[in-house]
Amino acid sequence: MAPTHATRAVSRDPPDIENILHLNPRTPAFCNVVPSLKTKQTKSHWKRNADKSCESCKQLENNFDDVKHTTLGERGALREAARCLKCADAPCQKSCPTQLDIKSFITSISNKNYYGAAKAILSDNPLGLTCGMVCPTSDLCVGGCNLQAVEEGPINIGGLQQFATDVFKQMNIPQSRIPGQKVMHNQSKIALIGCGPASLSCATFLARLGYDHITIFERESYIGGLSSSEIPQYRLPYDVVEFEAQLVRDLGVNIKTGQELSTKGLTIKSLQDQGYEAIFVGIGLPEPNIIPVFCGLTKEMGFYTSKTFLPAVTKGSKPGMCACRGAQLPRLRGTVVVLGAGDTAFDCATSALRCGATKVFVVFRRGFRNIRAVPEEVELAKEEKCEFMPFLSPKKVIVKANKITAIQFCRNEQQDDGTWVEDEEQVLTLKASFIISAFGSGLFDKNVINALSPVKFNKYGLPEVNPETMECNVPGVFCGGDVAGVSETTVESVNDGKIAAWSIHKYIQNKHGKEVPLKPQLPVFHTAIDDVDISVEMCGIKFCNPFGLASAPPATTSAMIRRAFEAGWAFAVTKTFSLDKDLVTNVSPRIVKGTTSRHHYGPEQSSFLNIELISEKSAAYWCQSVKELKTDFPDKIVIASIMCAYDKEDWTTLSQMAEASGADALELNLSCPHGMGESGMGLACGQKPELVRDISKWVRAAIKIPFFIKLTPNITDVVTIAQAAYEGGASGVSAINTVSGLMGLKADGSPWPAVGQEKKTTYGGVSGNATRPMALRAVSAISKSLPGFPIMGIGGVDSADVGLQFLRCGASVLQVGSAIQNQDFTLIDDYTTGLKALLYLQSVGLENWDGQSPPVTKHQKGKPVISLKDDLGKTLPHFGKYQNIREEKIAEIKKASVMNNNGISTVRPVQISKNVMKINDVIGSAISRIGAYKALNNQQQVVALIDDDMCINCGKCYMACNDSGYQAITFDPQTHTPHVTDDCTGCTMCLSVCPIMECISMVPKTIPHIIKRGIPVH
Amino acid sequence: MAPTHATRAVSRDPPDIENILHLNPRTPAFCNVVPSLKTKQTKSHWKRNADKSCESCKQLENNFDDVKHTTLGERGALREAARCLKCADAPCQKSCPTQLDIKSFITSISNKNYYGAAKAILSDNPLGLTCGMVCPTSDLCVGGCNLQAVEEGPINIGGLQQFATDVFKQMNIPQSRIPGQKVMHNQSKIALIGCGPASLSCATFLARLGYDHITIFERESYIGGLSSSEIPQYRLPYDVVEFEAQLVRDLGVNIKTGQELSTKGLTIKSLQDQGYEAIFVGIGLPEPNIIPVFCGLTKEMGFYTSKTFLPAVTKGSKPGMCACRGAQLPRLRGTVVVLGAGDTAFDCATSALRCGATKVFVVFRRGFRNIRAVPEEVELAKEEKCEFMPFLSPKKVIVKANKITAIQFCRNEQQDDGTWVEDEEQVLTLKASFIISAFGSGLFDKNVINALSPVKFNKYGLPEVNPETMECNVPGVFCGGDVAGVSETTVESVNDGKIAAWSIHKYIQNKHGKEVPLKPQLPVFHTAIDDVDISVEMCGIKFCNPFGLASAPPATTSAMIRRAFEAGWAFAVTKTFSLDKDLVTNVSPRIVKGTTSRHHYGPEQSSFLNIELISEKSAAYWCQSVKELKTDFPDKIVIASIMCAYDKEDWTTLSQMAEASGADALELNLSCPHGMGESGMGLACGQKPELVRDISKWVRAAIKIPFFIKLTPNITDVVTIAQAAYEGGASGVSAINTVSGLMGLKADGSPWPAVGQEKKTTYGGVSGNATRPMALRAVSAISKSLPGFPIMGIGGVDSADVGLQFLRCGASVLQVGSAIQNQDFTLIDDYTTGLKALLYLQSVGLENWDGQSPPVTKHQKGKPVISLKDDLGKTLPHFGKYQNIREEKIAEIKKASVMNNNGISTVRPVQISKNVMKINDVIGSAISRIGAYKALNNQQQVVALIDDDMCINCGKCYMACNDSGYQAITFDPQTHTPHVTDDCTGCTMCLSVCPIMECISMVPKTIPHIIKRGIPVH
Repeated sequence: MAPTHATRAVSRDPPDIENILHLNPRTPAFCNVVPSLKTKQTKSHWKRNADKSCESCKQLENNFDDVKHTTLGERGALREAARCLKCADAPCQKSCPTQLDIKSFITSISNKNYYGAAKAILSDNPLGLTCGMVCPTSDLCVGGCNLQAVEEGPINIGGLQQFATDVFKQMNIPQSRIPGQKVMHNQSKIALIGCGPASLSCATFLARLGYDHITIFERESYIGGLSSSEIPQYRLPYDVVEFEAQLVRDLGVNIKTGQELSTKGLTIKSLQDQGYEAIFVGIGLPEPNIIPVFCGLTKEMGFYTSKTFLPAVTKGSKPGMCACRGAQLPRLRGTVVVLGAGDTAFDCATSALRCGATKVFVVFRRGFRNIRAVPEEVELAKEEKCEFMPFLSPKKVIVKANKITAIQFCRNEQQDDGTWVEDEEQVLTLKASFIISAFGSGLFDKNVINALSPVKFNKYGLPEVNPETMECNVPGVFCGGDVAGVSETTVESVNDGKIAAWSIHKYIQNKHGKEVPLKPQLPVFHTAIDDVDISVEMCGIKFCNPFGLASAPPATTSAMIRRAFEAGWAFAVTKTFSLDKDLVTNVSPRIVKGTTSRHHYGPEQSSFLNIELISEKSAAYWCQSVKELKTDFPDKIVIASIMCAYDKEDWTTLSQMAEASGADALELNLSCPHGMGESGMGLACGQKPELVRDISKWVRAAIKIPFFIKLTPNITDVVTIAQAAYEGGASGVSAINTVSGLMGLKADGSPWPAVGQEKKTTYGGVSGNATRPMALRAVSAISKSLPGFPIMGIGGVDSADVGLQFLRCGASVLQVGSAIQNQDFTLIDDYTTGLKALLYLQSVGLENWDGQSPPVTKHQKGKPVISLKDDLGKTLPHFGKYQNIREEKIAEIKKASVMNNNGISTVRPVQISKNVMKINDVIGSAISRIGAYKALNNQQQVVALIDDDMCINCGKCYMACNDSGYQAITFDPQTHTPHVTDDCTGCTMCLSVCPIMECISMVPKTIPHIIKRGIPVH
Repeated sequence: MAPTHATRAVSRDPPDIENILHLNPRTPAFCNVVPSLKTKQTKSHWKRNADKSCESCKQLENNFDDVKHTTLGERGALREAARCLKCADAPCQKSCPTQLDIKSFITSISNKNYYGAAKAILSDNPLGLTCGMVCPTSDLCVGGCNLQAVEEGPINIGGLQQFATDVFKQMNIPQSRIPGQKVMHNQSKIALIGCGPASLSCATFLARLGYDHITIFERESYIGGLSSSEIPQYRLPYDVVEFEAQLVRDLGVNIKTGQELSTKGLTIKSLQDQGYEAIFVGIGLPEPNIIPVFCGLTKEMGFYTSKTFLPAVTKGSKPGMCACRGAQLPRLRGTVVVLGAGDTAFDCATSALRCGATKVFVVFRRGFRNIRAVPEEVELAKEEKCEFMPFLSPKKVIVKANKITAIQFCRNEQQDDGTWVEDEEQVLTLKASFIISAFGSGLFDKNVINALSPVKFNKYGLPEVNPETMECNVPGVFCGGDVAGVSETTVESVNDGKIAAWSIHKYIQNKHGKEVPLKPQLPVFHTAIDDVDISVEMCGIKFCNPFGLASAPPATTSAMIRRAFEAGWAFAVTKTFSLDKDLVTNVSPRIVKGTTSRHHYGPEQSSFLNIELISEKSAAYWCQSVKELKTDFPDKIVIASIMCAYDKEDWTTLSQMAEASGADALELNLSCPHGMGESGMGLACGQKPELVRDISKWVRAAIKIPFFIKLTPNITDVVTIAQAAYEGGASGVSAINTVSGLMGLKADGSPWPAVGQEKKTTYGGVSGNATRPMALRAVSAISKSLPGFPIMGIGGVDSADVGLQFLRCGASVLQVGSAIQNQDFTLIDDYTTGLKALLYLQSVGLENWDGQSPPVTKHQKGKPVISLKDDLGKTLPHFGKYQNIREEKIAEIKKASVMNNNGISTVRPVQISKNVMKINDVIGSAISRIGAYKALNNQQQVVALIDDDMCINCGKCYMACNDSGYQAITFDPQTHTPHVTDDCTGCTMCLSVCPIMECISMVPKTIPHIIKRGIPVH
């Protein structure tokens, strides 16, 4: 008998929910049938990329917004950094002129240690932010990326570099000299001429070395050289230049503007006369190459060179650069012809659009294959719908009424032998209102050339420079950047400055009779963060930082521990050893990757599973090893991990052996989840409180040094075991060992790892991030139950960020295993800078930062968005017709906008390094917030709030709410904008699946919280 | 006292290991200092991308290898599929002419269900492989991809489509009609003219509907139309066309070649006379547009149109296409000028290089912004170093001694009003040996036009067609593809055929007095796989498939369960309900994303953590719901989940209420890890065997239907609880519930979820993939201890692949929760096809397949590689000078190669659907391989083997072996090729971190296995 409609209602959605569900996916019964013509129309509604049929230039007048495809928001940066393989002997680094340790800085980004990344970048490249923005990476680091060999392609190294240094810029922390860094003859005066990349770099390294009298002279009123004057704002804003110059000033370098290298101003001789012991010349190539065809043409007629056009554009568009308020953009109109095929030509072309050009032609002498500019630049001009005309040589400019009206070219043709011939017979005329010549530049000004005397010049009209040292023929005079003839990019200029810095140092020291090391020793980047003390004391043992090797594969041999100590790890727990009678032999295969983050290959495995036993090496080996390590590294802590069966004599013997070896402490492995248990060892002991108590007592009686019980998580209540250890006299516990598990099977039922021909397996130990929730629970629960009982935290520690979580949960020091398996020992450098930065920033208390993450600006693709609404007040999405409306509105706004030309000034904060938190201040600090469910307030409810500007309209929130939530999100069929209804119960599912960090947030509920009981209880 | 050198040795690496470690990363103390000039040289050694300074055309003669950037290997496909957001109301689908359910097929790829993906693709697009290869996706699906809005960019949809259908192609399984699919008047004769995409598609859908007399007539000796004749082999090989044609033949469609539409051959009238009730015309546009300038020019002179050139190229380069053995490529030389700016022009340009051209110019009338070709095609020509000349109109061809020597153009200029004007004064001459005109095509042949009579033609000279139905003015005559005037792409032609199929069906049925549904009901793709029986019986209950909803957020309401049943889920366990006195109120936030796969946002979360309690809805609601669901879905299984404290009366009352509601079975939730335990419920009961035994006895006494105990994993030995349940009379167990954990803290120590202003939290339940190893362990351990005791498997079931693993470990049915949270209810479709395919393929036993994964071919970027060695016999890497040598060697090989023109024949296997494995055949089948450690053979050791051809030289294996292994991999400083030494102990770490699937394998060790004890035991 069918139930009546009234009673059936409970398992059917009411009509309002049915409406909401309209766009939710359904399993289709039949094929979809829509005529091709209709889809042709529909697709334009949803189109997000450029329409290939768009035939006009972009409306860009006055729009100097960032155009870089490489720019990344935090989510994008984390994603890209996770993708990087962090290769051995990385080719990216080898292809970077400054030899940036790219692998390391991307590792740090991946670990949310943005300061650590910035430190690595700025160490080798003091203009790291500039270079992140402007480097032709496809020709440098990215060209060597090993991921070029796979389908997903190379890493966006420039974008990552920009991201990390930009976050550091927002931290506003001054550069400082490394404490104790001193140099002899630090009073020697050093002059650097031209405040561009080469000089800024050179000055940085000299100041880091300890020189106190460094002056940079700049002829312009602004600084930065070509970075400021010729690279457009949409690729490199002036505040970036100012940021990097401030870092140089932080070290006491003096920058003087309005001081020109010229026979009428500064000369080499006059500087020497003033007592400058060393002079660095980094003046770039100041004058344009001009071909005869253009002689006599003026700006008024409509003629520019790149050297007159680009500075005029940057002065009129870079806020803060030009003191002259009211600097105006060149006003162009109609057709603009740009000549040249270098990067500068393409910068001129895209700048011309922003100055009002309605059509831009880039014309060049040879073909597309001969374009010198990097593909990135050409691509941008193409996207903005500039046109290209190859194989044409300029022959004549037509001027009427003192205005350029056209330009004539002849054809330039390549012969079969490869030579090029101009055919004067074939003439082509292009109407043009403006011509911009971008044929490169040189050093022609006699006043400058003479000011350099007695520097010798080469056949290219440039100073003769030793490219290994950047020395000129005149002792004490050095050169770098464009003027030195090797560098073609900003980053090479920076490197010239770096090389010159060491040469200048060597020159000054030698001059005063001092030798310098053969291998240069330029100090790394340093700030107050690096001075933060992260040492910690536990059981009277002092750890220089809280990070050490877990008793795991990275501690397989003592030679590996030695290398770990050299890398900077504070302590190591040896691989567990036993009495000789218990010696083991491993099976293989035995350490497999996790499937806990699905079909993921390569680094950043979320877990490993191993069926490796304890050490195959003898107790004698380990005891001898401990002795050696303690001798060679007295400040490092060595903890011997040992294991026996439940036998008093065995434990007594082995623990005394280990103590006698000189170990600082012992770790009793009562938790190995596989193999050893079958022999009555490992977790066979560690799962029973009474056994743990006994063993602890035996060992306490046998030795004097501290010892820790390593706890198994494979137990109902880990606290009972910790309690037993405590009662037995253990000094503390290590939590947690690996989690017992079976990783998976192939489709045919064979397991992995599969041992022997029979392909058998046993339950193994799961380690890594997948086990972290269990580890944090164990650590915090023990800490809460046994306050002050020391804990070594283990289980998915893979960054300073995670390390801090363990500390806050009550751990005193941290053991690392899987993270090293995913990478290498150098991780420690990231962990220590990362932890220092977290403590420092917590102490500073930057507003709305979360750890090292700055507050999120509303953005799409990492670039800020303006919130634009339609006529009904709804936010305009970023696709199809909505995007067109957005672009029109933005074009209007930009056209009417006036540059805010306020100067940029960096106010450095008062240094707070003295009051920075210590590790002891954070240990256990979160425990009070973790407790019983009943202590949670169910009156203070929250609901989801979606930020329409950040939304990418994927509807993940909508689907999750429909099929795993409360059907409280609507999804607009036209705009695909989700909207949270009053039915939201704050379950948080939408936020949890949203692909865009910070797009959804949970905010306090302001309407009454009514619970739907279905059929109410009477 | 320092130890002697001899005794110190154990903690120091011997010299051979020191050597190995030479390139291992070290923490740097100082900056790196390398002169810019040196890096300029070094970087070329490591360069992997194209050198921008390369100035000559690629050496491509006779090289027709795949050039598609979209081609993906399995690893690449899995990675790309994981990235896809699987959006709601997905814009990609809306932008696809065939309305392919892209979200679904990518979901299936991500779940390693390649058959499921191919089925989804071929359902809506019978030419799914062709379209995956040739679709201009940037203008279609990819143009609408929501990931265009983020930094990492849109999904490679074409590549994924190609990958999945190509794997299905390798499975070699025939298409079949859905059993029971019948149509009235199936004997009606249907003719399709032209065996191109439109006809193949139309015939497919008609055959699927049930028509038995379908004939395709093709004038050529080969099939495929434009796909075969004009799309080059390097974009679309002929075996793809043959594969798709075979799928059409599988359905009984007859294909006749050598039959031309012409007044001299077939005509509309003659076909009607032969009794064809419906005729579909899909003949394309057979003749080229030729401008007067080219009249009279011949192939011998060096003149081709795209319609003469491309078919000659394809015949000479597509193995299997041309019956005429010895078909020769057109032999070109010198400079080739291609005219046009459509896709065809660019195909001609890149084909010309392969026919021997040394230089290719693509010349077009308008600018770059007016190029009609999709960017993908233009980009390829650019990469291969073709040159481009815009704004030129051909005026005159210079012929000397009957050979073309040059071509003259005049300039074409756009006026300010947008019009184009040719300036005859401005003339440009280009030397050329060959000219290929690619100005599009049309229907000009009178013999063809007249053969179409009485079809009416429009002003464009094409048949007048209703674009909604593809009908011509003549009843029973339909048109599609290029000749119908709307379609511009293969996929649109396919869709024309699909639309026409339904119209033809309607026409035939109406003609015979039958109505058809208003909304088309075209049957989906079907094979023997879909006929596999995946039903399973457990406790006498029949499940139509083993997948159901876990008692979790997706089962929050019965309306949600209703939708899940409609989607295809076999069963659902309700959200746990209680007696009214135990009703709960939730806190918020409460369901958060996991951090177990690091900083991952969006779908495919590896875990969730929730602090949600049991259902907030009343028992009355749930009992009423169960009743309604069982009434409406008698074949679906409803399992009521209930919870009480340890109280006999409560359990009796509630279990009887639930039984009375009509539930098929009960699940007793004795394992909720948070909140409920504090009230004496959930895991407070489930962690104690005696309590579980008692509760089981009470419930067994109270009710007759089966019931299951849901087990907690937060326990030392889950088997003891299962044993207690068994002893208490429970029908089986569900394993596992969530794992108790703390997901993480922010840097300031506040937890997430943070409840209330005080930001407090409690331990929550972790679900998802991160818990799977524990779940597989629990299921297999229970299965081993209690053979035959039914288990419902839970814990990271997120695909058929994983489902099968649980079945093999002993589960009978599978509960899903987190995977739905990551996506939506339609997943069930993927799970069922996936499981069917796995059982089918296991039964077929394809050689070297692993589930649905075919054996790996050696490849880079998804494209096969030839193994090339240097003079010393070492494999040549794929970068820098080695890559140059590779390219030279390959060019030589290709130049000398002769096309293997063996015909392609598809031999269909005997259908084996009758002997396919059943679910019961696999349940528990892996148990015998899972056991004690001591049962593992430690004599049969393995070692790592690296495939140099697959290697991308990242050195992950090298670093992992150094810092977490046995220092048994060398790394060549020049080639970055790793090599495994005799020290390998088979630990498997290298394989576990290698980013390239199948690059490293573990193979039996052939040398003696000697264990290094460090200091040997005496």
